[in-house]
Amino acid sequence: MKTEIIKFDNVFLNQTAAVVGSKEKEGPLGDKFDSFCEDDRFGQDTWEKSETEMVKRTLEALLTKSDYDWKDIDLLAGGDLLDQCIATSHAVNNNGIPYLGLYGACSTAAEGLIIGSAFAEKGMVVGTLASSHFCSAERQFRFPLEYGSQRTPTAQNTVTGCGSFLLSQNKSLVRITEAVIGKIQDNGISDANNMGAAMATAAIDTLTRYLQNSGKNVNDFDLIATGDLGHEGFELAKEYAKSTGLILGDNFMDCGMMIYDLNTQDVQAGGSGCGCSASVFAADICPRIADGELKHVLLIGTGALLSPKSIIQNKIIPSVAHLVCFERC
Amino acid sequence: MKTEIIKFDNVFLNQTAAVVGSKEKEGPLGDKFDSFCEDDRFGQDTWEKSETEMVKRTLEALLTKSDYDWKDIDLLAGGDLLDQCIATSHAVNNNGIPYLGLYGACSTAAEGLIIGSAFAEKGMVVGTLASSHFCSAERQFRFPLEYGSQRTPTAQNTVTGCGSFLLSQNKSLVRITEAVIGKIQDNGISDANNMGAAMATAAIDTLTRYLQNSGKNVNDFDLIATGDLGHEGFELAKEYAKSTGLILGDNFMDCGMMIYDLNTQDVQAGGSGCGCSASVFAADICPRIADGELKHVLLIGTGALLSPKSIIQNKIIPSVAHLVCFERC
Repeated sequence: MKTEIIKFDNVFLNQTAAVVGSKEKEGPLGDKFDSFCEDDRFGQDTWEKSETEMVKRTLEALLTKSDYDWKDIDLLAGGDLLDQCIATSHAVNNNGIPYLGLYGACSTAAEGLIIGSAFAEKGMVVGTLASSHFCSAERQFRFPLEYGSQRTPTAQNTVTGCGSFLLSQNKSLVRITEAVIGKIQDNGISDANNMGAAMATAAIDTLTRYLQNSGKNVNDFDLIATGDLGHEGFELAKEYAKSTGLILGDNFMDCGMMIYDLNTQDVQAGGSGCGCSASVFAADICPRIADGELKHVLLIGTGALLSPKSIIQNKIIPSVAHLVCFERC
Repeated sequence: MKTEIIKFDNVFLNQTAAVVGSKEKEGPLGDKFDSFCEDDRFGQDTWEKSETEMVKRTLEALLTKSDYDWKDIDLLAGGDLLDQCIATSHAVNNNGIPYLGLYGACSTAAEGLIIGSAFAEKGMVVGTLASSHFCSAERQFRFPLEYGSQRTPTAQNTVTGCGSFLLSQNKSLVRITEAVIGKIQDNGISDANNMGAAMATAAIDTLTRYLQNSGKNVNDFDLIATGDLGHEGFELAKEYAKSTGLILGDNFMDCGMMIYDLNTQDVQAGGSGCGCSASVFAADICPRIADGELKHVLLIGTGALLSPKSIIQNKIIPSVAHLVCFERC
């Protein structure tokens, strides 16, 4: 029988943690992060090492807040935006915990939660993580910061942040109950400064597959949060959904718009990067589910699967969106 | 309870396929691959597109040989060596199958089999894949081919190849029964031309964890194949194992040494790349298990988690090794 929706019977979210940079600290969710770094360097002399240090601090915060010790963790699964995901692999180097490296661009947080849930369901204690850093990502995907290049209004601002999640069969107030793995697709966009547009249709495709196969409708959820379309992609997603007959209301939000104040912060269309939805869910949305403010929440993690080389070669941007369903117990 | 060995009760290998380049076709396993391309271009005008086309042909071969149609597949999981794994994401673009992107360098084939098995155990039909291409990898990690740069004797030759595996609960002659997820570690090596040495200790660490926790010994297996240490790393792994009291005999092999004739082919220390262990297991080892020639086989997929930037920054090379246990039913 075809599996459209993956069900998890017994997977609980035991803890979350998020560490961010200065711009994220200044945003609307600033008080909710576990820690931040004033100059985004995290005490390091390259931006790649800075990102690695941020990931380490996030894992330390996760374990400090939880009832677990490093030796209790059976698996870490995660990744970042850097070539060959080196920020994360250096962060977990020699920490003694088995590790699976993932690449899903900005959808990595959702991908980690889905894969992590599959192993948690087998009785393992699993940490998932996703990170991005504005300065390492700008250097890699666009220009070194020193160039001072201007950005287009549709561009998204890579979040400096790492979010982490601890999953197991040990009961808690928040369950992960269902997931939909996204199908890679493109809609003709090849502009790396308009990734929101490239991902918008993938987000709606995955949401529609979920609604059709679950029999649920958008009003069954307190929050449906994409991560991360930014303002441009978010508006396009709503328009595209409407053209298919799906009306998205006030419970439809985007993590890339939640993490910054788009009116006062210089972030163009909003946040993006693996660390955006990861840190917004870890610091804000998951705690609100645990508090009972939100009871049914969907994360739709969206990823634009481009590389610096694919952009130079003028290739189209394949996109993906993975869905994760959170429920208050 | 701590999980060192992950057990799979009901996961079967239903089919495999592998497509390679010309040098691999000329090697000792040449007749076993499903198809190859004489000029390694696969009809494309960039090496990145060539790799993408090779991945597409592998998936087509897998489905053609199997009893499944594209619409029957619930999930594809895989990756490659290129920045942001674009070879694979472009290959699966618009094919309508849910996809999870993985990054484990040369351990990606093993990582895909482990993650794929977790979802197959939930009743899904899962395809896993891993690819690499000599020409796209050389350009990215070392120098463009046109430079004609010389290579050191300890360097490994990136395999042009893609291997793919179909897993489900539908009974077949080969089962995947157990897995160990590797811990990332470094042993002080930062020489990108000696990745085998960087990975050797990770391979033995994972094998030792498996043997200690399973109560089995190396003679319980017809074949223990690393993928891919190359000649240099393979000898170091045997020496390192011996220093810990673990004697590895004739049933210990390396996919990077099996795919080429190291005496007659110009491949330095042997093969490497995500596509090496993937294509050797898909074309040679798994069919030999199905035939009954081999009954108990371990794949130890090894990955050197470096990037071109981490090498320029003179950073150490963290390595990982994932273990997968195959059994003839």
